[in-house]
Amino acid sequence: MRSLLLCRQDLDFLLFDWLRVDELTRRSRFAEHSRETFADTLDLCEQLASRYFAPHNKKSDANEPTFDGVEVAIIGEVKDALAACADAELIGMAMDYDVGGAQLPVTAAQAGFAWLMAANVSTAGYPMLTMANANLLAKFGSEEQIAAFVKPMLAGRFFGTMCLSETQAGSSLADITTRAEPRADGTFRLFGSKMWISGGEHELSENIVHLVLAKIPGGPAGTKGISLFIVPKYLVERDGALGERNDVVLAGLNHKMGYRGITNTVLNFGEGGHRPGGEPGAVGYLVGSEHRGLSYMFHMMNEARLGVGMGAIALGYTGYLKSLDYARSRPQGRPVTAKDPAAPQIPIVEHADVKRMLLAQKSYVEGALALALYCARLVDISHTAESDQELEHATALLDILTPIAKSWPSQWCLAANDLAIQVHGGYGYTREYDVEQHYRDNRLNPIHEGTHGIQSLDLLGRKVVQHDGASLSALHRTMTDTITAARQAGGESAHLAAQLDAVVQRLVAVTGSMFAAGDLDAALANSAIYLEAFGHVAIAWMWLEQLLAVADRSGDFFEGKRQAARYFFRYELPKTGPQLDLLESLDRTTLQMRPEWF
Amino acid sequence: MRSLLLCRQDLDFLLFDWLRVDELTRRSRFAEHSRETFADTLDLCEQLASRYFAPHNKKSDANEPTFDGVEVAIIGEVKDALAACADAELIGMAMDYDVGGAQLPVTAAQAGFAWLMAANVSTAGYPMLTMANANLLAKFGSEEQIAAFVKPMLAGRFFGTMCLSETQAGSSLADITTRAEPRADGTFRLFGSKMWISGGEHELSENIVHLVLAKIPGGPAGTKGISLFIVPKYLVERDGALGERNDVVLAGLNHKMGYRGITNTVLNFGEGGHRPGGEPGAVGYLVGSEHRGLSYMFHMMNEARLGVGMGAIALGYTGYLKSLDYARSRPQGRPVTAKDPAAPQIPIVEHADVKRMLLAQKSYVEGALALALYCARLVDISHTAESDQELEHATALLDILTPIAKSWPSQWCLAANDLAIQVHGGYGYTREYDVEQHYRDNRLNPIHEGTHGIQSLDLLGRKVVQHDGASLSALHRTMTDTITAARQAGGESAHLAAQLDAVVQRLVAVTGSMFAAGDLDAALANSAIYLEAFGHVAIAWMWLEQLLAVADRSGDFFEGKRQAARYFFRYELPKTGPQLDLLESLDRTTLQMRPEWF
Repeated sequence: MRSLLLCRQDLDFLLFDWLRVDELTRRSRFAEHSRETFADTLDLCEQLASRYFAPHNKKSDANEPTFDGVEVAIIGEVKDALAACADAELIGMAMDYDVGGAQLPVTAAQAGFAWLMAANVSTAGYPMLTMANANLLAKFGSEEQIAAFVKPMLAGRFFGTMCLSETQAGSSLADITTRAEPRADGTFRLFGSKMWISGGEHELSENIVHLVLAKIPGGPAGTKGISLFIVPKYLVERDGALGERNDVVLAGLNHKMGYRGITNTVLNFGEGGHRPGGEPGAVGYLVGSEHRGLSYMFHMMNEARLGVGMGAIALGYTGYLKSLDYARSRPQGRPVTAKDPAAPQIPIVEHADVKRMLLAQKSYVEGALALALYCARLVDISHTAESDQELEHATALLDILTPIAKSWPSQWCLAANDLAIQVHGGYGYTREYDVEQHYRDNRLNPIHEGTHGIQSLDLLGRKVVQHDGASLSALHRTMTDTITAARQAGGESAHLAAQLDAVVQRLVAVTGSMFAAGDLDAALANSAIYLEAFGHVAIAWMWLEQLLAVADRSGDFFEGKRQAARYFFRYELPKTGPQLDLLESLDRTTLQMRPEWF
Repeated sequence: MRSLLLCRQDLDFLLFDWLRVDELTRRSRFAEHSRETFADTLDLCEQLASRYFAPHNKKSDANEPTFDGVEVAIIGEVKDALAACADAELIGMAMDYDVGGAQLPVTAAQAGFAWLMAANVSTAGYPMLTMANANLLAKFGSEEQIAAFVKPMLAGRFFGTMCLSETQAGSSLADITTRAEPRADGTFRLFGSKMWISGGEHELSENIVHLVLAKIPGGPAGTKGISLFIVPKYLVERDGALGERNDVVLAGLNHKMGYRGITNTVLNFGEGGHRPGGEPGAVGYLVGSEHRGLSYMFHMMNEARLGVGMGAIALGYTGYLKSLDYARSRPQGRPVTAKDPAAPQIPIVEHADVKRMLLAQKSYVEGALALALYCARLVDISHTAESDQELEHATALLDILTPIAKSWPSQWCLAANDLAIQVHGGYGYTREYDVEQHYRDNRLNPIHEGTHGIQSLDLLGRKVVQHDGASLSALHRTMTDTITAARQAGGESAHLAAQLDAVVQRLVAVTGSMFAAGDLDAALANSAIYLEAFGHVAIAWMWLEQLLAVADRSGDFFEGKRQAARYFFRYELPKTGPQLDLLESLDRTTLQMRPEWF
């Protein structure tokens, strides 16, 4: 039976026919891998997803974690699924052999992990956070920290979190107030409270490793005074045994619209509920150097942002497949030109408007998946670059594409879920079907790991202008390579290439014009519109890339790719026209709006 | 304190300054009314909404009706709220004095009822359905039926439902299979099952009056063989006393993403659980003539569609006000050009991107509210037309605007709720705040009472072409009147008038060109895009109307109207450009897509 989580044929096409991920095995980091080990990873993840993650997706939505004041209770299936992940050694998939990882390309690991997110995005949140945490510590932690925390995380014994936000400091990390006081032994004691901490408390693992942003008193104001600390739930002895309970305690669970299966918490540090070593404060261990915390966290956050994008895609993709399945099996109505009311009904997949809703979903989720895997491959290239030039190019592209790869799927794969509900009609609005949950789950993605607004300022206010526009230029050159190849391919590809070329050139020109006036407020006022237009251009580029990879192959799958590419160029890419007009005009409507006029 | 449900100043502006609803009192039907009685209605509804509806909105969402196999249990606050409605004689607000109504203009009644929907759309569903039911029976029922059913509904003793869909027949009513067998005494016995019946079973009222579509055996196939029946839960004796239990029973409750406070049911008719008079079947009473059922139901459905639009607006509006309130009180971040991280944070309402999200919401909800009230006024005009010409004109406009007034708010006031969540950031995604519920509740509106797809076929396949395009011409003339007036007003109004004029002319021209080729499949293939473009044109027209009504008045409220109009013309109306391009091209992408290619 065809899976309703993701499409393996599409993954294989993107990974092997298009991105030629198997060529990564020529690089020494991946020399022990092969197309077969990548395929095994996908098989394994699909099996885990189907057997352990999907079956309790609805149940964990309907039975949120509860807190009785002492312990957090979570349905047993979550622990079973996570044990299966640990058995499969999934956490270390892409990490170094040194720390116990399997050193798979990030591209293969992300593609594999997408199955778990499609099956159950909440339960998948625990390993996702743990991977991100372990990854950061493996890079910036000391050997001792790696031994004490990273290895148990890879073994599935400890889980990880990231603790950035506070109730008064969400998007504005400069304003966090959690403080870390140094002690003579080189450790720190933390005092403060953190908000929105996923996986912040549970009994699923022996220990929880919190990575916490805090300020050391006397440091610089703003983000430059932020340091990063490991704050474990239980202290870890030199021999690895669990020691005293640390003073990080659950202050409360947040109750969300979706993502209900994973605890989302308020955590208090150093409130006095515990006094490790008889002293006040939560024991914390500095990671790396003082005041460099945010830059370490951004390393993790950039990959987390790609992960959020992939999560949004996974939800969009499974919703698409489920609505397609429904549309094929649901008879309703007759062709619009049919006259005989006694004629048999047709499956709704044959109605033009239903095909439109399915094509839109297909173009969103497959276009976004292409971008996500493209970015993952850039991560692999940057990890294994064979020249400065290669590193610089991969980094430039990754820098500018990360806000897109985070936000575009968060917006459009949510739109796909909206269409998946619509295809189902009234049934799609009920909890008896799956798609309403996907829609609720997916609604988080435009918010966490940097809202759309934050991503748009990152794109327009930082990435586009950095190094004198070098990242934008690198992307423009790369897109132009695709356009040139498509022109050479001729036929329909050449036609779409011309359309994309015109839009890309205009995007670049408009970008320049926005800053030309020297009015930064006006240039940034419509950054969200810029992010949207830029995203549509990037996805159109991904569709042109896919069209080139399809070449002249025939068969339903390839015809579907062609038609989805056409859909995107005809229905979606033209939306950028009015957006670029608005941006070019440096419209000041929002700037001129006064709060009291609302 | 300013209400966070709706804005009374906006309602007053729209009703009195713009629509001059008080002039309706010159018509004999409304002669006993005045601006004061309209204002009293708004006051009363606002009070009911605040005191009885809003306080249990969250509670009824978290505590859905449950069914133990015998009775449906619903939290007590629902019954209290509905008793308050009955005491206030709300059900008959707009109905004839004859049947016990207050004969208010529909415009005033709808504006009043919007408060209840903003406060608690689920609980408001019971009176909304009862009003629609009573309204239909008052028009098409016999005197005996009015006495037996309408009067108790107006008194709040009986509640009503509408029973159209079946599990296999949602959008395609031609395919219903519920049958009504005639009996010698002139009554009928019904057998079958109905799906998605809101308010279908509960203990909130003495009786439930189901209006049921069914087929009398031997009648024509398709929709022409559909008749309409009253099927009460309890039979009603000649003296009005409740008699035997009828054979309509709850088969199950649907569990929805939102709208959780109102029972949504599967009802079985004539399954044998009860045998009124010892005979099988549910007792039904024919309304009007045989086989005319759908036309009667459409009378109710058209008003129900306007009601759905108003419900969507109410949810969008309250979400807007709540996100505005949050944005004013939440400090976060600094101006994009600020350099000092130690400077105090500013309220997020001062960030350009937050103002954009608030302006978008404002332009959607206030623009949609204007359209809803405009349509309600057309209903009043059509009820009291003083000439054939006036009736024809009002009917033509109402015909063509109804699919817009239903679907545009369902799409864009849902988009407003999405933005309301985004303004709240992570908090908006939690159930501790209100907006995630509004978003879930509002997601029903693009589905029920005819999906977007159905509305788009109604608009393009029926309303636009009917009477040789007379409805479209009437609307075009009416829009042109506004454009002419705005040109005469000069200044900014003239500028926006020119922009709207160009788009309207293009819409009309494109509409003609779509049918010119004689290919109905191609003309209708993108009906959903047509619906969207048409809707944006209609709302832009509403904004130009509001701008004219503002004239040169000063003050925050009027400046806000001006800025929202500018926003809509600069950010929204241009979206129709690519949509009209696509429509003009008679794009066949969806038609050419084959089901097996997905």
